[in-house]
Amino acid sequence: MNEHLNAALAYAREHESEFLETLKEVVAFASISTAEEFRPEIEKTAEWVAKRLKALGMERVAIMPTAGHPVVYGEWLGAPNQPTMLIYGHYDVQPVDPLELWETEPFVATVRGENLYARGTSDMKGQVMACLSAIEAVIKTGSLPINLKFLIEGEEEIGSPSLPAWIEANKALLQADFCLNPDAGMLGKDYPTITYGLRGLASFELTVFGPRQDLHSGVFGGAVHNPAKALAELLAGMHDENNRITLPGFYETVRPLADDERVKLAALPVTDDFLKQQTGVPQVWGEAGYSSVERAGGRPTLEINGMISGFTGAGQKTIIPSKAMAKITCRLVLDQQPEQIYAQFQRYLEEKAPATIRWELKMYDGSAASISNIEQPAVKALAQAMQTVWGKAPLYKREGGSVPVVGMVQSSLDMESVLTGFGLPDDNLHAPNEKMHLPTWHLGIEMLIQFLFNF
Amino acid sequence: MNEHLNAALAYAREHESEFLETLKEVVAFASISTAEEFRPEIEKTAEWVAKRLKALGMERVAIMPTAGHPVVYGEWLGAPNQPTMLIYGHYDVQPVDPLELWETEPFVATVRGENLYARGTSDMKGQVMACLSAIEAVIKTGSLPINLKFLIEGEEEIGSPSLPAWIEANKALLQADFCLNPDAGMLGKDYPTITYGLRGLASFELTVFGPRQDLHSGVFGGAVHNPAKALAELLAGMHDENNRITLPGFYETVRPLADDERVKLAALPVTDDFLKQQTGVPQVWGEAGYSSVERAGGRPTLEINGMISGFTGAGQKTIIPSKAMAKITCRLVLDQQPEQIYAQFQRYLEEKAPATIRWELKMYDGSAASISNIEQPAVKALAQAMQTVWGKAPLYKREGGSVPVVGMVQSSLDMESVLTGFGLPDDNLHAPNEKMHLPTWHLGIEMLIQFLFNF
Repeated sequence: MNEHLNAALAYAREHESEFLETLKEVVAFASISTAEEFRPEIEKTAEWVAKRLKALGMERVAIMPTAGHPVVYGEWLGAPNQPTMLIYGHYDVQPVDPLELWETEPFVATVRGENLYARGTSDMKGQVMACLSAIEAVIKTGSLPINLKFLIEGEEEIGSPSLPAWIEANKALLQADFCLNPDAGMLGKDYPTITYGLRGLASFELTVFGPRQDLHSGVFGGAVHNPAKALAELLAGMHDENNRITLPGFYETVRPLADDERVKLAALPVTDDFLKQQTGVPQVWGEAGYSSVERAGGRPTLEINGMISGFTGAGQKTIIPSKAMAKITCRLVLDQQPEQIYAQFQRYLEEKAPATIRWELKMYDGSAASISNIEQPAVKALAQAMQTVWGKAPLYKREGGSVPVVGMVQSSLDMESVLTGFGLPDDNLHAPNEKMHLPTWHLGIEMLIQFLFNF
Repeated sequence: MNEHLNAALAYAREHESEFLETLKEVVAFASISTAEEFRPEIEKTAEWVAKRLKALGMERVAIMPTAGHPVVYGEWLGAPNQPTMLIYGHYDVQPVDPLELWETEPFVATVRGENLYARGTSDMKGQVMACLSAIEAVIKTGSLPINLKFLIEGEEEIGSPSLPAWIEANKALLQADFCLNPDAGMLGKDYPTITYGLRGLASFELTVFGPRQDLHSGVFGGAVHNPAKALAELLAGMHDENNRITLPGFYETVRPLADDERVKLAALPVTDDFLKQQTGVPQVWGEAGYSSVERAGGRPTLEINGMISGFTGAGQKTIIPSKAMAKITCRLVLDQQPEQIYAQFQRYLEEKAPATIRWELKMYDGSAASISNIEQPAVKALAQAMQTVWGKAPLYKREGGSVPVVGMVQSSLDMESVLTGFGLPDDNLHAPNEKMHLPTWHLGIEMLIQFLFNF
């Protein structure tokens, strides 16, 4: 076994440039799931992934339709009496705007320094390709020590709306001992990280309607409520002076952070200075009574993702806009449910919106938060592999982001997820110039090889 | 004289359709002054106006350069011992977005019902063409009873930035007894109106900067101040609970409305119900202690004209935007000055903006408010002409809009302006589907013919 491991590690080192070329191939697809016009790219990406799974010797490889974008499935069950690992991934990516801020084309992978730049390099085609590269190294040098199943979906960036039904319909197919989910990142390049907590998501679009069309601000200014102003008032009122969210009942079902967990979180290398340096903000901000790392991972939040009203071109246009819109997402913790947040948001608007305007609140799909058991054998196997490669024990963190599939896998398949990944905090996820740190990516591949031999 | 008047009126009635065709010609130019790419259209429009003045027999017609868009000048001084009237107009128009809300092309004049739809029909190519049509009717049927000068500028919709210097440089050329300014509207189609008060304008762009680029709202949400949220807070705080503007010192130089003026304004047919019907808002809004008509004309205001931040496309994008921007204009009354407002705005931001974000405040050109003397002979001549055509005395109103040239003409040329026009409150000024009510326009031409004979 040790011989096979060494051969696999050697294979991985010898094939670093081939692995990189393969990653470049898949990030070239503009598989943006948020807009219908990219559907052909989504389909091409699914086909590419399926082809790649077949090339690795996976069986029953299929592009399986869902109500939305397809799931790519594949399996290899040639290791009787060994555990089966379900590998989760998504092949869709975030939109790329503002396009003008990209230094190079978002779908032309470009190496600059130690990084590979392109949409999806870190979130998460690069993570999926790290798994496939590790598996390739092991397969090409012997037989896989454990059984594998793949669930690679195409709707993660829109909240995986079709996945719950698809998982329910394919429960038998997906049976496995645990799920490896490499869609969570590292706290820094020298900090191998295992994520055990994920926030949920509730996503909204709030529109405020004023006059039936734009008005001349000289003729009507002072006599009607400006909807951009009314929206600003409603948005401003959604946090109180302690930066706590004011949607009625918002904190009622929030599970408090346990004392021992707060102690562990305080030990993470995520200081306020680190956050300021990572983001460029002059000062951190947030809910009173909690540290930044607690707020960003263990507490619920409400964010404006976008906002638009009236005239925003060059120069001036003296109008009162007819309407104003904001996109808002809440990150949820246990035991909040997206539907509750929607009801609370409605109530907030019913109570706070003035009679001088009309409003409309739309909800997108959401997901609940989740916590994984860090005592399961797969977590221990992963921690051991990290210790071997980085020479240190992993950090255990709560992740502020939302990976809806973790909750689905837990509730539908009664399966624990093991969350990790090789993305870094400065990878520009969901932002221009997304990148993957290549030395870390190669270490990740080695670590995954080690991991496969730890069962 | 009476014979000439009757002949001119008859000419105008016979040439209604030619007048309309000429108006359609000039509104076909996209002479949008707010954006550089329309400069060729601006130039074509200036040429068209100059050609038209020449065709009417005006002398010394010239397209005179300024620091920005040119002024079209022309004169006819063949009536010795008679007064000289300077006619002010502007040939530039507002932008047309949101384009998708136009029922017909903004630069293809289209008659629907009693209205002519196109950008500039009401504001104010239609008003300029009413003057030229009236003059044509008088000239084609005899000799003009008074002397004329024309000042037709191309920067009104951007606050006439180049005009003060140009007027100063051309004081001798512009000497006249009064200025007719038809850039003010009517209170309704049965209400001939003379405007005696105009608000000034101070125009700003406020940008709030947060992280150096868009951040993943899951990873950083809760730990940094969302700039869209910070902007919403700053905007919401610009009015207090009585809807009074909170920029420090904002009301200090505001000249109160005189009691007799409040009585006159209360008699105008601008009720809250009228405003609701005109605009479609569920309720009126504004500064406590003042009626809607007082607020829309006689009190200063602060309006958000536009606002943008982050992701505003279809679907969702879970980011914390890197910045947020709002365009804001204040309408000013006597004795407020735009520069004072800028200083107050700066102070507001210095006092209120949190240390968690950075901000930048940009000021566009502004103008002070103005009040005209309604006892001057030209106002009496205009009132008499209105009485003749509509069978009733005009209403005297304060206009909420800003016509910067009125203040310039007063201070540089020591000349009073007579403000009128034939636009209606539902003309969709600065909005999609701008229109001119054609029966009112034709009455306006008749009234102007009568006016020319009242000296």
